[in-house]
Parts: sequence; structure tokens; C-alpha cells
Amino acid sequence: MSTATRSRQNTRARLLEAASQVFAEVGLDGATVEAVCERAGFTRGAFYSNFESKDELFLELAGSVGAERLNSVRTRVEEMAADGALAEGCDPVDLVREVMDSGGDDRLGVMLMSEIRIRALRDEPFGAAYLAQEREMVAGIAQIITDIAVAGLLRLRIPAELAARMLMIVWEGMAVRGAMEGQDAEQLRHSGGEELGWLVQLLIEE
Amino acid sequence: MSTATRSRQNTRARLLEAASQVFAEVGLDGATVEAVCERAGFTRGAFYSNFESKDELFLELAGSVGAERLNSVRTRVEEMAADGALAEGCDPVDLVREVMDSGGDDRLGVMLMSEIRIRALRDEPFGAAYLAQEREMVAGIAQIITDIAVAGLLRLRIPAELAARMLMIVWEGMAVRGAMEGQDAEQLRHSGGEELGWLVQLLIEE
Repeated sequence: MSTATRSRQNTRARLLEAASQVFAEVGLDGATVEAVCERAGFTRGAFYSNFESKDELFLELAGSVGAERLNSVRTRVEEMAADGALAEGCDPVDLVREVMDSGGDDRLGVMLMSEIRIRALRDEPFGAAYLAQEREMVAGIAQIITDIAVAGLLRLRIPAELAARMLMIVWEGMAVRGAMEGQDAEQLRHSGGEELGWLVQLLIEE
Repeated sequence: MSTATRSRQNTRARLLEAASQVFAEVGLDGATVEAVCERAGFTRGAFYSNFESKDELFLELAGSVGAERLNSVRTRVEEMAADGALAEGCDPVDLVREVMDSGGDDRLGVMLMSEIRIRALRDEPFGAAYLAQEREMVAGIAQIITDIAVAGLLRLRIPAELAARMLMIVWEGMAVRGAMEGQDAEQLRHSGGEELGWLVQLLIEE
């Protein structure tokens, strides 16, 4: 990687980190390009040579939240498969609990995705970009589900993509409510564990 | 009912209607008490003798959106029970489609509830009040589900309250995505019909 490329990646990373911090303090509307630049210590010029707009910056931040969530699940599932924990007869409820145990502190992610969705509801191009990103997320979850089904000799009762969308929506819905209840990072990690455990059991053929 | 009571109810109703209109135009933050009063044609005095705060006004509006949705489902289900459409062997997928057919134009409700949830995430007392309201909604859905199960000689595979929460979250999640896609009232009414149809099938013992 060239120095210029590494430097550019560094600038992008610092701007995304600053965006995350400013968002946490003042929300999506309040997180102006100016405020983000100030926090990151960059000029508007540096911003606009990396991002076309504030929308693009925050869509990328949302994408990284989703990718992090997906990666943490995928990693944990691969570990469990390697440990033989996904073999025939594994308990779906334990599976769900184990996967949730491995999540990070997602309180900021929950707030961010909620505000991103409001913007997506009110702005059509932003909404289209958000939905495209989410379809990739659903495809990623569907792949993980399919891999688990193959490894655990489990059979899904409905198509993997539908199962993926349901799981994602229920997980997100319960996480939002957990955050509303003021749950700390540990509690939030397990928000909806009961609902998801049941849903996973319902999704698998006996 | 006394004239004073009827007049008070009328004032409340007009303020709620104005709140709904102003919200549709400028969102939750922009819908100030002043803007709502101006739209309704009332003084701030008239507002504050009916509502303690803007928060209370919008929580009541959210509550009425939820109650309307619940009533439309309950009414349709009662009609179907009276028509013998819930008898043994009824198809859960048809049931879901019929119930969704009977919904109203919910695009504004979808926007409102999304913005209400953001406020609930950022403001603890508001969040507690929102969650209390939602628990009542879940209880209402659970009752409808239990009634259907009894009438249709169906058995639920999980507790009614858990089923109710899952259905509510999946319905809402799909409705939000439908609204993001710019679906019209008719399409939005059926958003998530496939997912809900599958979920209902999964929730019922064969």
C-alpha cells in the first residue's frame, strides 16, 4: 500500500471516528460536516476529498456498524463449529446465547441505526442507499444461517433469506427496546435473547 | 356528557389532529407547541389546560395510532370469527392477508412511531412512558392471538405474549422498510405479508 493510500485511509478512519463521537453527543441532525471536521482536526477540503457528503459519511458509518455485528457473529459461529459445538443435537437456545455473549458494546450502534432509519424514511436517495446496504447485511446473515444448518445437520423450515430478515428485525427491535430501558452494555448484549431463542427453535425442523 | 366536557374533548381532538398534520410536515422536533397551537387555532393557554407538555401530546398521538391499529385488527378478526372463517383448518397465511387488507393508510403512523422511538431512546422519562404504552399494545395483541387460537382450535407453540411481541416487531420493521421504499398506502398495508404469514405458520402447532 502506498503512503498516500495509507494516509487517505487514516483520514477516512479518523473522520468516521469523529462522526461517531459527534453523533453520540448531538444526534444525526446536529452532526454537521463542520462539527465532524473540527472534532477530527481536518479541513472541509480534506473531508470532501474523502466523502461526497455528510450522507455518504454516515451511510459508511452505518455500514461499518452492520459489518462489525455480522463479523462478530460469523467469528463466534466459526469458533463454535471448530469446537464441535454445532454438531447434531446442539441446542438452538444455547447457540443464540453464545453468539450474543460475543457481541461488543452496541448502545451507540442502536442509536445510530435508529436515526439513520429516520433519515432513510424522509429522504428517498438516502433511503435507497440504506436499503441496498441492508440487503447485503441480510444476505450475510442468510449465509451464516445456511452454514450453521449444514454444519449442525439442522434443517430450516423457511428460506434462509426470510429467516435472516426476521432474525435481524427481531434482534434490532429488542435491542432498541433494551436501549430505551437504559440497559448497560452487558444487558443490551442479551436483549431479546429469549425472543431470538424461541424464533430460532421455531425456524428449525424438529 | 356536560357541554364543558364535550368542549374539552373537542379541543383535545383538534390539538391532536393539528399535531399530526404539523408532524407530517416538519417532523417531531419541528412540531413545537406554538406550531401546533397555531395550526389548531388555539392559544397556548388552551393547550396547557389539556396537555402538560409537548411530550404528553405526542405520547397520546402515538397511543392513538397504536389503538387504531389494534382496533382494526380486532374488528376484522371478530368479523372473520362470526363468518366462520376461523374454524378448524383455516389457513394462517390467508388469515394474515385478510387482517392486513383491513388496515388503514398507515404511512404517517410509521413515520410518527419511528420518530417517537428516537425520542424514547434519548429521553428516559419519555422512554419509560413509551414502553408502558407499548406493553399495553403487546397485551392487546396477545389477547387477540389467544382469542384466535381458541376459536380456530389452533395451538400456539410459544407463550401468547412472546408471540405478540414478535409479530408486532416484525410487522413494524417491515412497515418501516416498505415506507422507505416509497410504497403507497395499499402496498404498505401488505408490507411484510410474506414474513408475517411465515411467522404465523411457525407459531402454530401442526
